[in-house]
Amino acid sequence: MTTTSMTEPVSIGVDVGGTKIACGVLRGDQLIERHLQPTPETGWEAVLDVIAAQVQGLQERHPHARLVGVGVPGPLNADRTRVKFAPNIYGFTDVPLVDGLRERLGQRIILENDAKAAALAEAHLGAARGTESSIYVTVSTGIGAGLVLNGRIWRGRHGIAGELGHVTVMPGGPVSGAGLDGALEAVASGTAIARDASYALNRDVSTAEAFELAEQGHPAARRIVEQALKHIGVALADLQKVIDPEVFVIGGGVASVGDFFFRGIQKAANEYSQGFAPVSIRRAQLGTDAGVIGAALAARHG
Amino acid sequence: MTTTSMTEPVSIGVDVGGTKIACGVLRGDQLIERHLQPTPETGWEAVLDVIAAQVQGLQERHPHARLVGVGVPGPLNADRTRVKFAPNIYGFTDVPLVDGLRERLGQRIILENDAKAAALAEAHLGAARGTESSIYVTVSTGIGAGLVLNGRIWRGRHGIAGELGHVTVMPGGPVSGAGLDGALEAVASGTAIARDASYALNRDVSTAEAFELAEQGHPAARRIVEQALKHIGVALADLQKVIDPEVFVIGGGVASVGDFFFRGIQKAANEYSQGFAPVSIRRAQLGTDAGVIGAALAARHG
Repeated sequence: MTTTSMTEPVSIGVDVGGTKIACGVLRGDQLIERHLQPTPETGWEAVLDVIAAQVQGLQERHPHARLVGVGVPGPLNADRTRVKFAPNIYGFTDVPLVDGLRERLGQRIILENDAKAAALAEAHLGAARGTESSIYVTVSTGIGAGLVLNGRIWRGRHGIAGELGHVTVMPGGPVSGAGLDGALEAVASGTAIARDASYALNRDVSTAEAFELAEQGHPAARRIVEQALKHIGVALADLQKVIDPEVFVIGGGVASVGDFFFRGIQKAANEYSQGFAPVSIRRAQLGTDAGVIGAALAARHG
Repeated sequence: MTTTSMTEPVSIGVDVGGTKIACGVLRGDQLIERHLQPTPETGWEAVLDVIAAQVQGLQERHPHARLVGVGVPGPLNADRTRVKFAPNIYGFTDVPLVDGLRERLGQRIILENDAKAAALAEAHLGAARGTESSIYVTVSTGIGAGLVLNGRIWRGRHGIAGELGHVTVMPGGPVSGAGLDGALEAVASGTAIARDASYALNRDVSTAEAFELAEQGHPAARRIVEQALKHIGVALADLQKVIDPEVFVIGGGVASVGDFFFRGIQKAANEYSQGFAPVSIRRAQLGTDAGVIGAALAARHG
């Protein structure tokens, strides 16, 4: 049994993804243990069984870790007891996650959206550490965000705050899955870049290849990627003008492309914020641990 | 001398406009006295003299009204002691308003941007009364906003939060005075509507006339006004997705057009928020008193 201090807060975080369930123990601001399990593809009850077994295992080794947070990739109901749907997890529609885990664990866990959990993690222990207000933006197959204002997650009236992928940046532009024209994620997500590159090159082109070709100077790929990054940069400049956060933190699969990605976004953000306020953009620091750390922090914040 | 209760908060609000300086006494939530003076056009020191004389007059009649707030139509410096510039007031550039009034009045006043003051007034005593979060949007010659989150004005890191008129809604569209293409106020403010209607009709058309013609079914005027209102509605839907406020309150000169204006905005807001959360839009209730009431409330909040 690992000794845990009585004075430092200790909590457990679980990050439920489409392929893996990650869980770990956060003592103070250190992730002292971390485990991965495959996500069952046989329905939500099997997913809850895995979560419960993992939490029980961690609590046996860390008896002080009573606070448990669970992050899921989807919207929650208003009182954060159910997951409305998580498109990347098989069978995850209207899941009573809090009640289901109470039955299995005999305790109440804290449920959080995974982008909001990552925003909290980066704000407290990652790239936005020491700031009062930050906006975490994840760019991957879709685009999402989490707002942290005065050190706490800002949820909004209906809990949807941070739905950045669905703001309209090009009226009349490509239609998103939500049925809206010109949504940010329909013109700038990894999926959108791959779609446009595949069309322009008349063959299957992945997001990663589109970035490689762009960096090598392929005219069509370069224009496609630059336009996508410009849309993201303009969206950040817009948020600077309306919310004026101290810093933006960008993570997600597409962001792992690195310098080329961040330079393109910063350039547009600078151009569209001049005369107002600088747009400070940082890379996410916690990588794939952000979800577990954020869920563990969410458990402490309640 | 009017008697003022010792238990109810009493404060003075001053709203400095381009043509008029309004001031009044707010006792509890009632504006019990209100005065108007013309704004001097001989420089900022003359403006401060008028403000000071008005405040002194009010304080003679209301000795308990020690808290004074002053609202101005322009951006402030970070510690809210100076007005950076107020384009509609002659000579109002880099004005040390707090120090200048301390010299004249022997007390510290609270300085506030007028849109933020109006947002506070509508949130506490107007159309958004009883809500936790609201966004006040003013549509007149320009477009501005004030965010009230958890009952308090949200300023952001650099104090610019609420610069809604400068978000990009039509990339490549008309260029604003700030030098940015497709800013909301460049496509949807009163000035933008008058500009487009004057061009289309090949004569001088005011914003009011453009709305009249639109309501009468004039094809070009109707399309111009509908497009402007659609841009505003889409912008509100975007803010619903990112900030998710309880309610929007719309005021300003153009909003006084009435039903036609609000219907157009609500229609687009509904269309672009479906599947996310309803966009609740209310008309500002406090009219021209919002500035004075908001400044008086800002004085109490400090």
